[in-house]
Amino acid sequence: MSNILWLVIAAGALGVLYGLIQTAALMKASTGTDKMREIAAAIQEGASAYLRRQYMTIGMVGVVILIAAYLLIGEWAAIGFVIGAVLSGLAGFAGMLISVRANVRTAQAASESLSKGLDLAFRSGAITGMFVAGGALLGVAGYYAVLTAGMGFDSTSREVIDGLVALGFGASLISIFARLGGGIFTKGADVGGDMVGKVEAGIPEDDPRNAATIADNVGDNVGDCAGMAADLFETYAVTTVATMVLAAIFFRDLPYVETLMLLPLAICGVCVVTSIIGSFFVRMGKSQNIMGALYQGLIVTGVLSAIALYFVIDTLIGGPIVTNGGLTIEPMSLFWSGMVGLLVTAAIVVITEYYTGSNFRPVRSVANASVSGHGTNVIQGLAVSLEATALPALTIVVGIIASYQLAGLFGIAIATTTMLGVAGMIVALDAFGPVTDNAGGIAEMAGLPSEVRHSTDALDAVGNTTKAVTKGYAIGSAGLGALVLFAAYTSDLEYFAANAAEYPFFANMGAIDFALTNPYVVVGLLFGGLLPFLFGGMSMMAVGRAAESVVAEVRRQFRENPGIMTYEVKPEYGKAVDILTKAAIREMIVPSLLPVLSPIVLFVAVLSISDKATAFAALGAMLMGVIVTGLFVAISMTSGGGAWDNAKKVIEEGFTDRNGVVHGKGSEAHKAAVTGDTVGDPYKDTSGPAVNPMIKITNIVALLLLAVLASGNIG
Amino acid sequence: MSNILWLVIAAGALGVLYGLIQTAALMKASTGTDKMREIAAAIQEGASAYLRRQYMTIGMVGVVILIAAYLLIGEWAAIGFVIGAVLSGLAGFAGMLISVRANVRTAQAASESLSKGLDLAFRSGAITGMFVAGGALLGVAGYYAVLTAGMGFDSTSREVIDGLVALGFGASLISIFARLGGGIFTKGADVGGDMVGKVEAGIPEDDPRNAATIADNVGDNVGDCAGMAADLFETYAVTTVATMVLAAIFFRDLPYVETLMLLPLAICGVCVVTSIIGSFFVRMGKSQNIMGALYQGLIVTGVLSAIALYFVIDTLIGGPIVTNGGLTIEPMSLFWSGMVGLLVTAAIVVITEYYTGSNFRPVRSVANASVSGHGTNVIQGLAVSLEATALPALTIVVGIIASYQLAGLFGIAIATTTMLGVAGMIVALDAFGPVTDNAGGIAEMAGLPSEVRHSTDALDAVGNTTKAVTKGYAIGSAGLGALVLFAAYTSDLEYFAANAAEYPFFANMGAIDFALTNPYVVVGLLFGGLLPFLFGGMSMMAVGRAAESVVAEVRRQFRENPGIMTYEVKPEYGKAVDILTKAAIREMIVPSLLPVLSPIVLFVAVLSISDKATAFAALGAMLMGVIVTGLFVAISMTSGGGAWDNAKKVIEEGFTDRNGVVHGKGSEAHKAAVTGDTVGDPYKDTSGPAVNPMIKITNIVALLLLAVLASGNIG
Repeated sequence: MSNILWLVIAAGALGVLYGLIQTAALMKASTGTDKMREIAAAIQEGASAYLRRQYMTIGMVGVVILIAAYLLIGEWAAIGFVIGAVLSGLAGFAGMLISVRANVRTAQAASESLSKGLDLAFRSGAITGMFVAGGALLGVAGYYAVLTAGMGFDSTSREVIDGLVALGFGASLISIFARLGGGIFTKGADVGGDMVGKVEAGIPEDDPRNAATIADNVGDNVGDCAGMAADLFETYAVTTVATMVLAAIFFRDLPYVETLMLLPLAICGVCVVTSIIGSFFVRMGKSQNIMGALYQGLIVTGVLSAIALYFVIDTLIGGPIVTNGGLTIEPMSLFWSGMVGLLVTAAIVVITEYYTGSNFRPVRSVANASVSGHGTNVIQGLAVSLEATALPALTIVVGIIASYQLAGLFGIAIATTTMLGVAGMIVALDAFGPVTDNAGGIAEMAGLPSEVRHSTDALDAVGNTTKAVTKGYAIGSAGLGALVLFAAYTSDLEYFAANAAEYPFFANMGAIDFALTNPYVVVGLLFGGLLPFLFGGMSMMAVGRAAESVVAEVRRQFRENPGIMTYEVKPEYGKAVDILTKAAIREMIVPSLLPVLSPIVLFVAVLSISDKATAFAALGAMLMGVIVTGLFVAISMTSGGGAWDNAKKVIEEGFTDRNGVVHGKGSEAHKAAVTGDTVGDPYKDTSGPAVNPMIKITNIVALLLLAVLASGNIG
Repeated sequence: MSNILWLVIAAGALGVLYGLIQTAALMKASTGTDKMREIAAAIQEGASAYLRRQYMTIGMVGVVILIAAYLLIGEWAAIGFVIGAVLSGLAGFAGMLISVRANVRTAQAASESLSKGLDLAFRSGAITGMFVAGGALLGVAGYYAVLTAGMGFDSTSREVIDGLVALGFGASLISIFARLGGGIFTKGADVGGDMVGKVEAGIPEDDPRNAATIADNVGDNVGDCAGMAADLFETYAVTTVATMVLAAIFFRDLPYVETLMLLPLAICGVCVVTSIIGSFFVRMGKSQNIMGALYQGLIVTGVLSAIALYFVIDTLIGGPIVTNGGLTIEPMSLFWSGMVGLLVTAAIVVITEYYTGSNFRPVRSVANASVSGHGTNVIQGLAVSLEATALPALTIVVGIIASYQLAGLFGIAIATTTMLGVAGMIVALDAFGPVTDNAGGIAEMAGLPSEVRHSTDALDAVGNTTKAVTKGYAIGSAGLGALVLFAAYTSDLEYFAANAAEYPFFANMGAIDFALTNPYVVVGLLFGGLLPFLFGGMSMMAVGRAAESVVAEVRRQFRENPGIMTYEVKPEYGKAVDILTKAAIREMIVPSLLPVLSPIVLFVAVLSISDKATAFAALGAMLMGVIVTGLFVAISMTSGGGAWDNAKKVIEEGFTDRNGVVHGKGSEAHKAAVTGDTVGDPYKDTSGPAVNPMIKITNIVALLLLAVLASGNIG
């Protein structure tokens, strides 16, 4: 059986290896002119400096939590936490390192042809994708191997489970800081730079006279690349861990428990391979259809994953299995559950493309509304953002029902795992967006011909959709996985209560009532439900403040150096980067701690006025509450933001309204569309995406709270 | 015992009588100049024409449902439905009739002094408030009297319960149409008129050359007055009915069951009296503080209500009572539960004032953000709108815990009822806002001196806050009442299942699992959760379309009649009213039917793939899901919209930013603030407020579905 574990580790290593080889190939591509190299170097420097400081700050929080984990739970949890945190951080760093090298090369490639630009940008995305998926798999499977094969712990022992959950927590903690810090940086620069440049000074986007341009480009790399990579790493790791924990609980003491704990790892392992194969199929046909090229790779990955899934399950699961709860599951039911995960992924991709793609009703309706003014643009964009939640939510509802009917809760877990299995490919689709966005910025600043900018803009527009897709996918998997995380929580609780002799905190607790008729369940739902809203409000305000500091700085430079406007003096780009670095790091702390501390606060508060069972019920309901509202908040923000951004792009390319009037760059409609885009920026790149790691953290903190209480070290 | 019922009916009648007497007094006030009367007449005519057509359309839907109610449940449900629908419609109509008469008189009074303006506007609001509270109490108590004392039905019989629930349904159905139709009308006129007038033609708000001005003023009356009155009528009626139903279930066959069914009516009865008394205390002191004057009346009502509550409970409840579930409740626990309701009301008023009042951080931060541009104004406004949900949600959480600890679920019901008891006063606070808004419009169009406009603007700014307060109050009561409605649903289900011999549909159904561990409960939560988002998206788009039709019409008039701009030709105001009437009525249908049909669709869908118990569990969870997200969507929309509106007003009065620069009317900051106000318009006056009746409808349809299935007429 251990063979399979080694194969999984090999698959993880293969993903990382693919990344390394492709990186070497990427580095060989031309970096264009000296001017381009100079700009790229400034971006690289700023991005590295920011990430170093960000991770140093997170490191300080991390050390405190590490010590707490060691003292409160034990050494294996502490080591797991470190592995998750370090790997998640590395994934983010790698994403940034690749993208700051790919941007200038993409600009150069796009100056040769659209197809070459796409090829290079996508390849760089695939590198990040495989680093994320391969690295996460390596981390989870590797640590599992160390704990079981290495240290000889039983696969369902507390050491293994706490170690894996702590690994997930490490990944989540880093990722929320990275998502939020990077998001505040990038959108502070973007919003602030646009306001003071485009609106006030009347100079174009990415104009070299704007001191915030380099910061804006740095932001793409530290937010959309590094933050996104850390986020997806976390989603991947947490989902895999949760499924393994569920397998350990559902099949504890049964002969096939180890096989079923390996199943999620095996599924993820083959999907790494199918993602690598699929990535070679992203090639532009004669139609010059960018989205078509990306779909091609995605479809190949999907079909191959389905086939591979069949063989994995056929090989690992010989016949019907029975859970401790008495549910009999046929192997083929597990296969179809996995298929549900793939189909949910496909549906979310298609739905998100509809809501954010340039050729469909929603984006065109926002463009049309821009003709009447700023207000109507924003109203229509908000309306689209609200509406865009319905179909994804229905998809998830259908996914839950289908996989549950097939194979119970474990079916939902397998569906979620398979959904996440193809994350390498999805990250590849996402990471290419910011790279092309950056390439466009470099082309503009280096004075390349306008056709180059046209090519990168076309790629960027698709990138807006694929970025929204990834976010919908991540949050969708959280919705589908909600029951998995919740089941891990309730099953853990049951286990501790049943073995109260060993875990005295849980003695004589009585039954825990998770029914909606229990007012404390409603209290938990409402308390959890408010977190995404409060978190969204706090992070939007943080972007506003960061943007204001950028505006003040750029204004100061314009005022003190009139030569900037006449190209005689180069603005101090580094100053803007510096100011944003400080702002982003300062602003990310409090909102990030909100989901870490809230579960503990609620538990203690309810415990102080009621009993343990009630406190656990309220805490459990809170986990569900944060998902129920978080799902909608996140999807509405990311889809709405994508629609606003592309409505602006549609107008820039020349938009013909219902009355046949054409509106282009600089028109009143364009100004309104820029307003919408500005509003959408923090929506889609700061607040919305950070909701996903926020949900996970809340859930994992709850699991760890149980582990702490079980350890007997407090309470 | 029946004496109490007669006293309650007398209190309801007193409320209506107060309304009639005050109306007579109101009519005696001066209506100003001929010009003012002419404008007021145009508004009256438009508002009456719109409401007649709106209610005719609703009537057609109503007749279909009436026939269905008669055939599927029985005659008493059908009659109850008619009573609720007609009274809710009348409340709306009365609200409109008063406000279209009060507006011109307020303009005239304000031209004498601010204090007189406040006095007249508030008095007109109080008339609507007492019509709403008195009428609702009269309807519920009267029909209860007819069914029990008149027809001799047992107070806990199906006839009585189904009749009362159907009365609530009638009220809810009318109110969602009225809220939505009125909301689309008013904001279509407001947004469209502003866009084509202020932004395009560069003429001031309410300028008589704008063909949409009369429509805009009509909108205030049919949306903010009529729609609001119908909505609060519904909230009042449904909450009272739900508490009565809960009392019938909890104390069935116990000696004090009738007393406890009368308790909510008695509480509401005394609160009508205390609201009337409180209304006489709204008087402006020397400080000319408008909000202070309103607070004075509110505080008097609150304190008197607390005292009256004590005597009601002391008189009605002689000693400890025991529920069928075995919970012993002390009389004083019920008193304190009621106090919780009053305190929740107070907290929501204070929190909403903080988030929407001109003197506090949130509004000032939006004003400050306007200085940097349209985009930052909207970002800050959205951030405020998200953040504004947290404290109200926490208040509700604390309210649930406190009242539950005091007296179980019945304690929560009493808290909610007492909260709604003072609705007459709250409606009074709300209805005065649109009246002053209209008065300002009339002053502008009739060319009154600018000081008059200044007075009405000051009143209107406070009106923006009180409008947000009412909406927060209505949705807050829905949040607090969530468990009451849900308990009515589950208790009904239990009762039918326990008496399956009589209700064969519920035979052998097995236990219903409402626990969060049941995937169908999660499915229900997510499905319910998506409704407020989808509904919000649909209604925002409807406003956008209505506004566009107004823009097209006003543009046509400017084009075809150049004399309008030079005051030579009067614009065709009626045309704009007509176009909006058609648009609003067309657009209100589909979104309003969404909450009516969704519960049925979910139930049938789950039933088709699973069993009855599962379908009932999913439906129950859906009711909770719609509240969990609806609460946040509604509060964020109404508070955010209020903040945007007042940020604009703050700038119009001359706003000094952080750098000491003053921004006034016509400045760039003002333009940005107008954009925010435009976005906030459909947020706060269409989509947000309609979420409250939407939640109620979903819940009541579920209760009626049970009644239909129990009747044996289908299934």
